[in-house]
Amino acid sequence: MIKLEIAANSGFCFGVKRAIQIVQETIRQNSKVATLGPIIHNPQMVNYLKNRGLCVLDNINEITDETIIIRSHGITSYEYKKLLEKEVNIVDATCPFVKKAQKYAQKLTQEGYHLFILGEKNHPEVKALLSYVDDSATVIANPEETIKITGKRKFGLIAQTTQSEDKFERLAINLLKECEELNIIKTICNATLLRQKSTMDLAKKVDIMIVIGGKNSANTNRLAEIAKSKGCKTFHIETSNEIKKQWFDDVSKVGITAGASTPKWIIDDVKKELEKLN
Amino acid sequence: MIKLEIAANSGFCFGVKRAIQIVQETIRQNSKVATLGPIIHNPQMVNYLKNRGLCVLDNINEITDETIIIRSHGITSYEYKKLLEKEVNIVDATCPFVKKAQKYAQKLTQEGYHLFILGEKNHPEVKALLSYVDDSATVIANPEETIKITGKRKFGLIAQTTQSEDKFERLAINLLKECEELNIIKTICNATLLRQKSTMDLAKKVDIMIVIGGKNSANTNRLAEIAKSKGCKTFHIETSNEIKKQWFDDVSKVGITAGASTPKWIIDDVKKELEKLN
Repeated sequence: MIKLEIAANSGFCFGVKRAIQIVQETIRQNSKVATLGPIIHNPQMVNYLKNRGLCVLDNINEITDETIIIRSHGITSYEYKKLLEKEVNIVDATCPFVKKAQKYAQKLTQEGYHLFILGEKNHPEVKALLSYVDDSATVIANPEETIKITGKRKFGLIAQTTQSEDKFERLAINLLKECEELNIIKTICNATLLRQKSTMDLAKKVDIMIVIGGKNSANTNRLAEIAKSKGCKTFHIETSNEIKKQWFDDVSKVGITAGASTPKWIIDDVKKELEKLN
Repeated sequence: MIKLEIAANSGFCFGVKRAIQIVQETIRQNSKVATLGPIIHNPQMVNYLKNRGLCVLDNINEITDETIIIRSHGITSYEYKKLLEKEVNIVDATCPFVKKAQKYAQKLTQEGYHLFILGEKNHPEVKALLSYVDDSATVIANPEETIKITGKRKFGLIAQTTQSEDKFERLAINLLKECEELNIIKTICNATLLRQKSTMDLAKKVDIMIVIGGKNSANTNRLAEIAKSKGCKTFHIETSNEIKKQWFDDVSKVGITAGASTPKWIIDDVKKELEKLN
């Protein structure tokens, strides 16, 4: 008999809910609606919206006369400028916490700090952050990375909103050793922190963890990392189709958690599939 | 046969050397010279200066018409105001690094940060720091202390110039968990950092450590703490008179280190006494 437990704070966060509502509202009111890149990092949810009329463009040059929705992760200042030149209707679905991080990046840079961003340099949120400081910041994925900055002794530190608190603290200590001043602004969003904490607590209690969410989702990848770091056997899936029966041999307690962009219907579906194992 | 090794960077730092030079110069040029409290935290060195005409006053009310030297640790803003009212000749021997810390304390407080000071609340340097922010800062001696600040979510952090880097980092992490912004300015002076590092390295190599310096000297107490934390048997002495032969039974390697206010003649004297053990 397998016992299932779903982590508290699983699934949609405020910023994702808001972005999806904006898409649905915009589709209702306009005939041609597109996002630049996926609105959120969940292929299934994006597909659901595509089936309701949303178009996903990879490049600004593909735009003709669509109403353009800015994705939850934000876009670069260069893209924004180009968008304005296109003279199309723009709807901004950037997560307010991401916007806040962009403002803090600018503030620290303007005040003379060399800015460090804990994050993935190819993630759209980080690319956007960088663009707002004219690419002058240093992006760091590994908190133990050797810091090589000559000249400036005043460092600023922020994070991609979906990074882990533990990594952020480790990077802060690493940077502190290399500078005279360190101005830290905690831009990891509260929903991320709560979700990570619940996942950590659950991972300690169960035999295996099922982490549900886009393979391209930064916050979901962090959840899988956190569960693994607690010594828990962990499987990251997007949908119930990926579940393999053999994972559950000699397993009695299964924990489930889901990223900020994972819709409830996918979580429910995984739960239903797992219940069938009994 | 006992082998002795003296830690690099032992003894007088820039601020202490400067303060003693100022005292000697002032005695040469004036008939009545006094400090408010000891100029540095080394009773033997203070006694040496007293024998050359320096007077040490405990209280501003004791002042008559002396030239008053402000001690290396600085004085509170209230004391400074009172001194001005006395209309006496004032010579400032405050360590420039301590002065810098006072400026940073004011800057962070003025910018709206709740200021934390890693230090000993009864130490004259910390009392002075506090006075420059109208006692609005929180002084913390134990970096793992529970942080209880309601309202403010923007914290500032500095340290008494003679604190240890390790404690400073631990306090930074503790504070980071309790706030949204943390602006850290590293006010531990470089001489302190170098002396601590040399003491740490030597403590790892020897059987016992002799730490020489005032029992009232914050930076010397830190050195003793650091040597002990490396698992090394440690004795904190002010002069060679305190050396006990039995400390050296079954000992082959002895490390010596000295605080920033310990004069060379005391270090040399301890060394000579220890050499007699062979």
